[in-house]
Amino acid sequence: MNFEGKSGKYLEDAIMQFASLPGIGKKTALRFALHLLRRPEHEVEIFASAILSLKKDTKFCSICNNISDEDTCVICRDNNRDRSKICVVEAIHDVMAIESTAQYKGLYHILGGIISPMEGVSPADLNINSLIERINVGGISEIILALPTTMEGDTTNYYISRKITDKDIEITTLARGVAIGDELQYTDEITLGQSILNRKAFIQK
Amino acid sequence: MNFEGKSGKYLEDAIMQFASLPGIGKKTALRFALHLLRRPEHEVEIFASAILSLKKDTKFCSICNNISDEDTCVICRDNNRDRSKICVVEAIHDVMAIESTAQYKGLYHILGGIISPMEGVSPADLNINSLIERINVGGISEIILALPTTMEGDTTNYYISRKITDKDIEITTLARGVAIGDELQYTDEITLGQSILNRKAFIQK
Repeated sequence: MNFEGKSGKYLEDAIMQFASLPGIGKKTALRFALHLLRRPEHEVEIFASAILSLKKDTKFCSICNNISDEDTCVICRDNNRDRSKICVVEAIHDVMAIESTAQYKGLYHILGGIISPMEGVSPADLNINSLIERINVGGISEIILALPTTMEGDTTNYYISRKITDKDIEITTLARGVAIGDELQYTDEITLGQSILNRKAFIQK
Repeated sequence: MNFEGKSGKYLEDAIMQFASLPGIGKKTALRFALHLLRRPEHEVEIFASAILSLKKDTKFCSICNNISDEDTCVICRDNNRDRSKICVVEAIHDVMAIESTAQYKGLYHILGGIISPMEGVSPADLNINSLIERINVGGISEIILALPTTMEGDTTNYYISRKITDKDIEITTLARGVAIGDELQYTDEITLGQSILNRKAFIQK
């Protein structure tokens, strides 16, 4: 839809901003803008200030780098969590994905990316040193590497594991296999191959 | 994905606001919020102020009610447009949809809704009186009713046409190339363009 120059600068500015969000084209951005135009002014003020606060007031946990309102995040402050386990993830949304399973009660460490020579991301750009420091303090029995199954993820897994092999810590990764509900014929060959190699007893003895 | 209470108030506020946009669920809202968090602060400030300006600074054209930066809109100010034709539409996005076809060179009149007894929208709630005033000034040869092909749209068409039948004005509607039930803003440009070219008399004489 081509409507440039027909409806004024403010609408076009707002459309441009909304269209900068991931997966949002100009048509959807226009829909958002017209939607906001129809809403009362105080609601739009709340909308704009929520976005500003998100950026200005959000802190990052000084221990695990998770999003937090305070110096340390809710998870790191929670005394009911298993402090001997650290799950290493790439980004904040991975913490959310794992938390939503309610299957993990340990702590996290967010790297803020993965090692990628192609994109110029070196270990120094990531929160790897702070992870090693946490481990050096002691009391950690398991590190769960929950990074993507890409070459970059594997590189990062390897880099971290090399840094801590001298310690008496179990290093694990997520089980890889056929997703529950998926059909074998639509599962990619590498995943299916891995799930055969890593098959487990049907009846646990 | 359930992450409430895990990542702080500011993120949740921003997610709530994004999720108030049409068609946006919590998961997409989270994606928007995390995307903004990764962007530099000055970019997020521009984002927030564009939204505020959209609501605070956008004016509506005193003639046709289109969005405008000034007292009258670009279309009403344009001397190259045919001032004897007024296309009556429900909302601003309809103007944009018709403009993007480049098939119409007349003026517009935005009603700001359509007559809907079910939703309590009466003719007095709409910009119908200002349309009649524009017509009464004279110099109008054609009124194009480009309202939705719904019962409410038909009711509004009929109401407007009854108000101006005593005048020597041709009243036309869009050709029914637009599928019944479809909204103008989602109609492809060729169909919409054809439906403007093939507009027909509302009352067959």
